Order: sequence, then structure tokens, then C-alpha cells
Amino acid sequence: MGKKLTSRAEDYSKWYNELVVKADLAENSGVRGCMVIKPYGFAIWEKMQAELDRMFKETGHQNAYFPLFIPKSYLSKEASHVEGFAKECAVVTHYRLKNAEDGSGIVVDEDAKLEEELIVRPTSETIIWDTYRKWIQSYRDLPLLINQWANVVRWEMRTRLFLRTAEFLWQEGHTAHATEKEAMEEAKMIMHLYADFVENHMAVPVIKGTKTESERFAGADETYCIEALMQDGKALQAGTSHFLGQNFAKAFDVKYASKEGKQEYVWATSWGVSTRLMGALIMTHSDDNGLVIPPKLAPIQVVIVPIYKGEDQLSAISDRVGPLVKELRAKGVSVKYDNRDTHKPGFKFNEYELKGVPIRLAIGQRDMENGTFEVARRDTLEKMVVAADEVVDRVVGLLDEIQNAMYQRAKNHQQQHITKVDSYGDFKKVIAEKGGFVAAHWDGTPETENRIKEETKATIRCIPIDVEEELGSCMVTGKPSKYRVLFAKAY
Amino acid sequence: MGKKLTSRAEDYSKWYNELVVKADLAENSGVRGCMVIKPYGFAIWEKMQAELDRMFKETGHQNAYFPLFIPKSYLSKEASHVEGFAKECAVVTHYRLKNAEDGSGIVVDEDAKLEEELIVRPTSETIIWDTYRKWIQSYRDLPLLINQWANVVRWEMRTRLFLRTAEFLWQEGHTAHATEKEAMEEAKMIMHLYADFVENHMAVPVIKGTKTESERFAGADETYCIEALMQDGKALQAGTSHFLGQNFAKAFDVKYASKEGKQEYVWATSWGVSTRLMGALIMTHSDDNGLVIPPKLAPIQVVIVPIYKGEDQLSAISDRVGPLVKELRAKGVSVKYDNRDTHKPGFKFNEYELKGVPIRLAIGQRDMENGTFEVARRDTLEKMVVAADEVVDRVVGLLDEIQNAMYQRAKNHQQQHITKVDSYGDFKKVIAEKGGFVAAHWDGTPETENRIKEETKATIRCIPIDVEEELGSCMVTGKPSKYRVLFAKAY
Repeated sequence: MGKKLTSRAEDYSKWYNELVVKADLAENSGVRGCMVIKPYGFAIWEKMQAELDRMFKETGHQNAYFPLFIPKSYLSKEASHVEGFAKECAVVTHYRLKNAEDGSGIVVDEDAKLEEELIVRPTSETIIWDTYRKWIQSYRDLPLLINQWANVVRWEMRTRLFLRTAEFLWQEGHTAHATEKEAMEEAKMIMHLYADFVENHMAVPVIKGTKTESERFAGADETYCIEALMQDGKALQAGTSHFLGQNFAKAFDVKYASKEGKQEYVWATSWGVSTRLMGALIMTHSDDNGLVIPPKLAPIQVVIVPIYKGEDQLSAISDRVGPLVKELRAKGVSVKYDNRDTHKPGFKFNEYELKGVPIRLAIGQRDMENGTFEVARRDTLEKMVVAADEVVDRVVGLLDEIQNAMYQRAKNHQQQHITKVDSYGDFKKVIAEKGGFVAAHWDGTPETENRIKEETKATIRCIPIDVEEELGSCMVTGKPSKYRVLFAKAY
Repeated sequence: MGKKLTSRAEDYSKWYNELVVKADLAENSGVRGCMVIKPYGFAIWEKMQAELDRMFKETGHQNAYFPLFIPKSYLSKEASHVEGFAKECAVVTHYRLKNAEDGSGIVVDEDAKLEEELIVRPTSETIIWDTYRKWIQSYRDLPLLINQWANVVRWEMRTRLFLRTAEFLWQEGHTAHATEKEAMEEAKMIMHLYADFVENHMAVPVIKGTKTESERFAGADETYCIEALMQDGKALQAGTSHFLGQNFAKAFDVKYASKEGKQEYVWATSWGVSTRLMGALIMTHSDDNGLVIPPKLAPIQVVIVPIYKGEDQLSAISDRVGPLVKELRAKGVSVKYDNRDTHKPGFKFNEYELKGVPIRLAIGQRDMENGTFEVARRDTLEKMVVAADEVVDRVVGLLDEIQNAMYQRAKNHQQQHITKVDSYGDFKKVIAEKGGFVAAHWDGTPETENRIKEETKATIRCIPIDVEEELGSCMVTGKPSKYRVLFAKAY
């Protein structure tokens, strides 16, 4: 376990890095920018995957799998797409190694050079749209609703576990539709689906909106997004859903015969969330003692720790705990009874606190005599004594309570950190001192957006979908503006 | 749908290739040797994954995720391992593209050359053992039982959908143990687990055994395998489980402090099955009409096709089918009611036959009057008329029956294709004419094994684990032999 975590107040960034490693979520590997997701971290990701996968299937999507490699020429077919990804991609140039002739070890075999270089997919629009050309002939083939769970690589220079890694895991949806309207509805539906998942499973409140042109996905006509707010007042883009118009259909010549027999280009969307969500989860809820995981995503929801001296006491406690474990499991609760004799209760308490297990039950001699358990909540660190025959109901109820309370706390934090400002001076002050989202008027030009970014590091996170019309003037240029947009510094 | 499949008798290999594409399982992509797994094929793979994942977890394994890339120097650390994989690997040498100065398009940016080349993982022993060095200090950290679901790349020159592709999907288990015995037991346990899965879920009988030295995994001290037999008499290696001894522990310096406080190298296993299993599934059961999928892996177990003229008839049929669908689903059966009015019943019958749906129900006017359904089995193509109130029980029972019958048919085929021979002349004749496994005496030397391979294309598939001692003499050299080994031509 080692020494205590750095506190958030002391150094938020250091706190995060330490926590990810100490709580056994992930660590850096020997490969620059690539992480190892450790079993405990991966178990949380698997729970996210399972729920998202269920939601995608429920809305009519099917999974498929497309190649890891993208021929260089494919990437080039959509102009703004290649612009966005060429600068940071892993390039495969050879297909063989050999022993060096001078005996110095193993080297690339220059005789095994690929005719065309392959890019390790940074995202799969191009390879998928090359395939869709073969799959789509008629309106009967539409809509085509496909999702892929995959690894992707973007050669980031400055990486951080989960938040920004060269390789990451994600899902990418790629859909094709007969009409613009249908594609636009799909893109919006997915934004709402993502928000539903992130709010109701991760207990992370988000703001839904659209991106400005300069923040859009490379190749999209519109990008819908959900934006979360971390405890340090920085925003984190938690998921994006893109309306791609006919850009990829035109680049890859994907047409369908309409009911009327006309050849038309199809309309497209793509959308994704990634292991970055793990970063959002950690930074929204956790505290100076360690992780706090919402019950719906906790690999272990309840841990039971016996407090005893000698084998007789342990055996009596185990007799009482056994049926409780069974009953909780029958109710769908994942329980761990930690009866290891190699570690003291205090050590175990710290470990499960660090790992964010939502509820800890402890039972010692006094509890044995009184027929009680000590029940501790991870989120509030509250402790209570509960009668043994009430403990199952109490635990089941508490799991819901904790899930809701975590969301509510994060929601309160978010609400307290949305500040309206009307002058650029106030804007700079809020961004520098308080952080959070700042709602301000902007003249709608990339130039102003860029100037604000350069001067304050704040970017436009989104134009909220429920934005209210409000005539005003741009805080920087004074030009007219019809609504406020949300700025923040972001991960 | 297009024209009929090539028959197996006509051209088995062509039949397979056509079937994989026509049944919507997979297709070649624009990237040499890489396939696209289509939604229907991927749905079968997902069912395999789900069951295997459950079995791994039940036996104490946890999932994790390790980097896609392996530094060249890691691969070189285990001598026979690099020997095995260097000849066919994808090498990443650069991390950026740029616009060519002469305007000819996008090219590799030579200023973005990696200091050390990265290999796209062909298997993950090296990157994982580099990580295990940090995870393992004491006997308390053992056993370490990890599995990873991942994509891997081996630059095969001659590829075939599912059977041999440059990129494929698999799971790879990597375990570390305190003792040789424990590691050996793990490797064997996994062989039995694989056999259990392949026989009881895929309905594919296998022979369990060990590989000869020359057929072993690069870096293993012993390779356990399960070998299946396809309808054309060729064997297919369906899964392998390797006892790695201390080879990787020594190459990556992974030691633990024993209870007695001594520093010891750990013992290792690794094991995997891949999308190749899809090939085994297809080639074991399918026929000239298309796929035959065992009920336990069928994405759609039962399809219901209405036979009607006009909307009134369809609506009356739908009223009768509705409750049936509900009842079947309540019993855990996956049902599709295909009421598309764009296709005729005959077309639908062909489509579901091609796609291997285990049971087809049809209901037309006579059935409406008689209160019956027509029930058709995909495996035997038998049809029967079943009273409506018996159809749920009959279907549920039939799914079991079909699963068992498919296994039994494949088992009979396997048994009929294990031939004992005592002379090299007979051996050549059986291998060339009848195919299947040939049980013969061999002198135990790689030289003889190699000569047989060169002269007949047959290899030693395994030394069965339940092999009986039988003194004999090698069919080629006449040297003494203690038991028969199994030869076959293989995929």
C-alpha cells in the first residue's frame, strides 16, 4: 500500500496519477504512452462495456469487427479527416525482422517493405466506409447500424493514464442512413444515450451540446457532445456523436438506390466513448482516501471484514457471515468476505477505502454479542450499527442511496461551477480563480474563439442543446450574440 | 443471396470460402490478409466469448489489458520466441505522416522515425512478462491468473477467412505460479476447459494431447492441444495451452520470495483460442445448403415464417405467433419472427437454411385451421407438424436434441476417421485417400517427423493424453516405439 496519497488540495494532478496506480486501476507500460489496464481497473471498464453494449443493442445496433490497419491511401480520401489524424499516427512500414548480418541483434528486414504503408487505426471511418460501399446497394440495406469495440492509436506526445494515452480502448458506432434527418436523429439519440449512461451509471452529471466548428471531429458536419466537470473545475469531454453528412459517402462513393430508383449518397454518423471515461469516473467522485466508485459500476459492492482474535472467533464470525453473503448474492449484490489472516482489519479497511468499495461491513466480538454489524459508507465515510436481521435490506437500500447521493453531490458541484459573466475581465478572473464552466456571449467567429483560447487556455466546451435565446454582445469584440456558450479549461 | 453454393464434393475449399461470405460471417477487407467480421459472424463469436469468459472467471482468472505494441528489444529476450515470430510481424517505424513537398500526396514523415521499432503483438508473452516483473515480489502474489481478449497480428502470406488471417481476435491467458507442478496443472486444466467448451458448446469433438517438440509454441517446454477433425478429413488445431517452464521468468527476470525467503524464478503458462474456432465450427457441421449452427451458439435459435396471402391472413397469423414468441423468449430461447412483406417464404426458408438457424417454424392457412405449426430442423432437414399447444415444449426439447445430435454425428465422423496403420505404405495410402487421423508408430525423432511431413504433408497432430502403451516399431525407420501418435494433414 505504501504511504498516504497526495491530497487533492496539495496537487490535484499528482493525486490523480498516484490514485490510478495505487488503487490498481492502471499503470504505464514499457511502451511509450501505452498503459496496462490492471484487473481491478479492467473489471470496472467491463461493467461499463456491458451496460453500453446492452443499450446499443436495445436501440438496434449490431457489433462487427473491422481491420486494425488502414491503408495510407484510405486515410487521404476525406480531406479534413487526414488533416486531423496524419500528424499523430503509428505507421507500419515493414512485415519482417531478421538477424543483423553483423550479429548485432535483430533488425528490420529492408527486403520486407510494404508497398503501401499501413496506419494503425486512430478511428475507423475510412476502412468502414470502404466496406459499406459493398454492403449498401438499396434503401432496403438502410439504416445500417454498426458498433465496434476496439483499440485505437493516436500518437499523443503528452500522455496521462486513461485521460490521454497513445493506445486506448473504445467503442465506435458507424451508421448509414437514407436521409439527412434520420442520420441527424441518430446522432442526437446517441448523445442522449451517452448522457443517460454517464449520469445514471457513472453518477457523473453532464451538459449536452454541440461543438463549435473548430472543435468538431475531423470530417463531421456537426458534433454532439457530453461535457462533465471534474472536481478541480476542469471540463472533460465524456463522449461525442458526429453527424457526418455525406462526407464519407462521397469520399468512398457509397450510394443507394432509393425507392424511386434514384442513386443517392447515404448519410452518416459516427460516435464513441473510450477508456477516458475511467478518468472521468475517478476525478468526479474520489477523495483524499482513494477511489469512490458508484455501486452500479463497482466490481465489489460490499466487503465484509471480520475482526477477531484466534481461530475460534473467526470461525464463529464466518458462521454468521456465510448466510449473509448468500442472501446478498441472491439479491444480485457482489460481495467479498475478506477473511485473509495475513492482514489486519485496519490494513483491510484502508485497502477497500483506497479501492472505493461502496459499503464495508465489519463484525467483531461486540457485534457478535449484540447481533449487529457495523456498516460503513465509502462515499460519506459514515458508520452505523445495524441489526443482523436488517442488514440485507439496509445494504440493498444503501446501494441505491449511495448511487443517488454521488450523482447529487456531483450535480451540486457542477451547478455551483457554472458562472455567467458579461465582461472579458470577469471571464479571465473566473477561469483563473474559480474554474468550472463559464457561460458567456461570443461573436461566433473562430478568430475570437482562438484568441480566448490563447489568452486563457479556456475553450468553448459546447453550445448547450437547451440554450436559451438571450441577446447580448460578445465579451471580447462586442459584436452581437444570440445566446451564451459554455467555456472551460479542459482535459 | 445469389446462386447456390458450390457443393462440398465438388470443391470443399471453394464451398468453405463461399459459405463464409454468403452466410454473412466475414469477408476480405481492402487490407491484405485482414478480414471484416460481419454482424452475423460476430454475434456467434460474441456467444463463444461470453461462455469462455464465464469459464475463465469461474476458474479464478481475471481480465486485464496490455499494450498492442511490443518494443523490438522485448521480443528478442526469449531466444526461441523471437525465432518463431520475427519472420512474420508488422513493424511500426514512424509516428507521423505529412504532405509530400512535391504535392504528390501524403507520405511518411522521415523526421518522425521511432528510436526503437515497435512490433504489433503477435502474442503478448514478452510485454506481459515485462509487467509481471513489477507485479510479482512474493509468494503471496502467486498464482497470478490473467486473461486478455485482444487482436493480434501475424503476417501470414497465404490467408483464409477465420482459418489464417494476418489480424485475428483471440484470448490469451498468462499465468505465473510458485511451483512447476502448479503451472503444469494449470496448463492441463485449461486444455480440459477448452475441450469442454469446444465439445459441449460448439458440438465439435476433439482429441486432447501434447505436441511434439517441433510443433511446440516458440518458448514453451510443453504444448497441450485439442485437435478437431473437419469433414474433409483434415485436422484443425482448435486451442493450445503451453507450459512455459521458467523461460520467460528468466528472460524477464521475474523472481519471487518464497515462504522460506529464497528468491526463486516463477513458473508460467500461456494459452489461447482464436476466431479460428469459427472455421472449425463451420467446417465441422455445415452442409451444401449452408451453415448448421449448434443451438448453444446460434444468434437466432428459432425463426418463425408466416405463409399468407394479403394483410388479413398475415394479421391473423401474427396474432397467433405473438404469444408464442413471448413464451419462447421467457424460456430463454432467441426467436425471430420474420414478417417482412418484401420477401417470399421460399426466399426466407433458403436464407435461414444458409444461415444455419437450428429450428424453423412455418405457419400457413392449413396450420391456422388445424391449430398447428410446421417445425423444421436445420441439422437433419426433417419436418414435422406440431400442435400449437405443444410447440413450446417441442422446440425447447428439440434445441437440446439438435445440440446432442450434432455432436454425435461429428463424433461418429471422427471415430470413423481414426485409422491404425503399421506400414509407411499404408500410411501414405490412408493419408492420400481417406484422410483423417492416422495412428502410427514413430521413432520419436524430428528427422523422421520432418521426412513424413515432406513426403506426405501429414504432421503429428498430437500424442494423445490417454495414449496406451504399445510396443512397436517406427513405420519409417523400424526403430522401437512405445506408443502410437496421431498424424493428419491439417489446416
